[in-house]
Amino acid sequence: MVVRKAKAPNSPELLLFAASETDADAYYFGQVFVPDSFIAFSQEGKRVAVVNQLEYSRVRKDSAYDEVLALEDWLPVARSKGAKGAAVFPAGVIAAVASARGIDRFCIPENFPAGVAFQLLELGLYLEPVSGALFPERERKDDNEAKAIRQGNAASAAGFRAFEKMLRAAKIDGNRLVFEGRPLTSERVRQQIEIACVERGAQALNPIVAGGDQACDPHCRGSGLLRPHELIIVDIFPRVTATGYHGDMTRTYLKGRPSEAQKGLVQTVLDAEQWALGEHRAGKSGRKIYEGVQQRFVDAGYETHRDTAGNPVGFFHGLGHGLGLEVHEAPRVNRQGERLRKGQVITVEPGLYYPGLGGCRFEDVVRVTNGDPEMLSKHPYRWHIR
Amino acid sequence: MVVRKAKAPNSPELLLFAASETDADAYYFGQVFVPDSFIAFSQEGKRVAVVNQLEYSRVRKDSAYDEVLALEDWLPVARSKGAKGAAVFPAGVIAAVASARGIDRFCIPENFPAGVAFQLLELGLYLEPVSGALFPERERKDDNEAKAIRQGNAASAAGFRAFEKMLRAAKIDGNRLVFEGRPLTSERVRQQIEIACVERGAQALNPIVAGGDQACDPHCRGSGLLRPHELIIVDIFPRVTATGYHGDMTRTYLKGRPSEAQKGLVQTVLDAEQWALGEHRAGKSGRKIYEGVQQRFVDAGYETHRDTAGNPVGFFHGLGHGLGLEVHEAPRVNRQGERLRKGQVITVEPGLYYPGLGGCRFEDVVRVTNGDPEMLSKHPYRWHIR
Repeated sequence: MVVRKAKAPNSPELLLFAASETDADAYYFGQVFVPDSFIAFSQEGKRVAVVNQLEYSRVRKDSAYDEVLALEDWLPVARSKGAKGAAVFPAGVIAAVASARGIDRFCIPENFPAGVAFQLLELGLYLEPVSGALFPERERKDDNEAKAIRQGNAASAAGFRAFEKMLRAAKIDGNRLVFEGRPLTSERVRQQIEIACVERGAQALNPIVAGGDQACDPHCRGSGLLRPHELIIVDIFPRVTATGYHGDMTRTYLKGRPSEAQKGLVQTVLDAEQWALGEHRAGKSGRKIYEGVQQRFVDAGYETHRDTAGNPVGFFHGLGHGLGLEVHEAPRVNRQGERLRKGQVITVEPGLYYPGLGGCRFEDVVRVTNGDPEMLSKHPYRWHIR
Repeated sequence: MVVRKAKAPNSPELLLFAASETDADAYYFGQVFVPDSFIAFSQEGKRVAVVNQLEYSRVRKDSAYDEVLALEDWLPVARSKGAKGAAVFPAGVIAAVASARGIDRFCIPENFPAGVAFQLLELGLYLEPVSGALFPERERKDDNEAKAIRQGNAASAAGFRAFEKMLRAAKIDGNRLVFEGRPLTSERVRQQIEIACVERGAQALNPIVAGGDQACDPHCRGSGLLRPHELIIVDIFPRVTATGYHGDMTRTYLKGRPSEAQKGLVQTVLDAEQWALGEHRAGKSGRKIYEGVQQRFVDAGYETHRDTAGNPVGFFHGLGHGLGLEVHEAPRVNRQGERLRKGQVITVEPGLYYPGLGGCRFEDVVRVTNGDPEMLSKHPYRWHIR
């Protein structure tokens, strides 16, 4: 057993080495965005960061850290203890700081860099990986967080409006859509969505604008011409720059004349989404809501299976996921879904995908309460644009 | 020693578990963007990915993987071998796939998640962390990569033009700048820069627009009113969405009347940048170029030290860094800088920062050759806007 468990009666202090601009736990811990990986740890309820000169003043002024150490002060200490080359930072510095402060054990998150962990073990520190969520309390969103997520969804909605404006103005020219004299493509739409999000203080992070069979690959971003009479899935999950919280919404559109099969597909997904939204209440089983959606699809004649090429068709992804500092975070609502708890913010996004017919998905966001779910997203469902 | 070194004569196969949309090595390995962490490994020169149904078709169609396994096929195998709960994915699946394919050892990158690494060791796999760069060849950029970086810098330059347009049109109203009837702020400028980058197919990733003393904190993004007669640092490091490669350029501006001290500061930084750009040739010592800049600053009367509050002033960051799939990557040009090698793409970004006087930085990007450095960035240095 390589993981030396802490023997101390109290749980060991937490150690992080991550860039808080991309690592949600590191941001949650210190409440400051830092672009490069830095050392942070807890000691007796205090939060301590070790940052370089570039970050020093800013982190001291504007973060949740109780104490900020200058990396440049500790590099010589690490070297004086024999650390050389790449072993100086971060492992040597972590060991030197820990030793000076009387810490001999840390718990570390699952995504702590293994290379650093192995060096720390060699240097004699005890490490205990936390299995599962580092901060389970991240699942339960307070009112400020719910507001930040609403802002994210407001950016998503602004993106939909930008697309709808283009789609309404577009002309059907044979099997192409023409907007402002040029063919309408996923790329052009994505650009306008990105601008709409920027105008709302958010970054759109590669929104999906996928038409026809492209939409049957739920993570395909979409590229090239958008066609009339085809279903187009638009999934926008922007990150609000100021807060780091996300929105995540999906709408499906069709410009032109929908077939009866397309109408049936859209109505089935929309009905399932509206039903599932109402089911998101504290104490309800996520698995049962997922299964309820799957059953509704089967009852309506939409089976989930693999096609002859081995590709999945039907409803083959989870129903939803937690949303917050990460686009995908706990909990998951799928066939392993647990009971929902008050304060969880969850996407509800059933979809059906059949190459040849097309793909359809609608996605909204709720906060779970003991009563009616609190909607954190808002945008009409008008999918058919003439 | 917890890291069991492979005893095999050949170097062990590589194992990755990362999201290639955010992990540059994972993207470099498989040449496909995947938003969530997934399993990837090498076997006898082939690249193998294990992805869920959501990604399966897309990764099969459009990546450098020679073989793509469906995660859903391997989850039951992991469970049949006794894995339960969080141990099923990814550790249980990795162990099951490795066992089925006769692999008993892997090398892993330094940033491989420690929680997973510890589980794999318990499951009997041999793991060898790679110290330093996983793909050292990432430092040497080919022509396609240089082109992608030029595109990133073209987005930066578009951002500068957007700002210059605002600054030229702005009116001085006491100690404020007024643009289109409202006070000019860092936030308003950042938004226009972000839009300019989006229009070039790039995401601006929190550009810095920092005036006055804010600019003396090199990673402060800047907020609030931009003032006349103050130096304003604008640092734009966009990521081109289609390729994942970055640009990274900085310009300094002043609207109004510069003082003699401000003029001297700007000219000193600009001279140092132009000198340093020319020094970036294969075989030259990065440390010596860094020291040359530092010496030029000292000779011109600009010392680097800590002020009475303990904050660093002067030129207290590195001269440059590698640029590519990451904004900051190898090599670093600083007081530990090594000899430059052909093909390296490096930022050159000297700066001087003195609270009260302000901050100034200019940054361009070169590709190192055996002869004259190849400029990968282009934008005028007109800093004084009347």
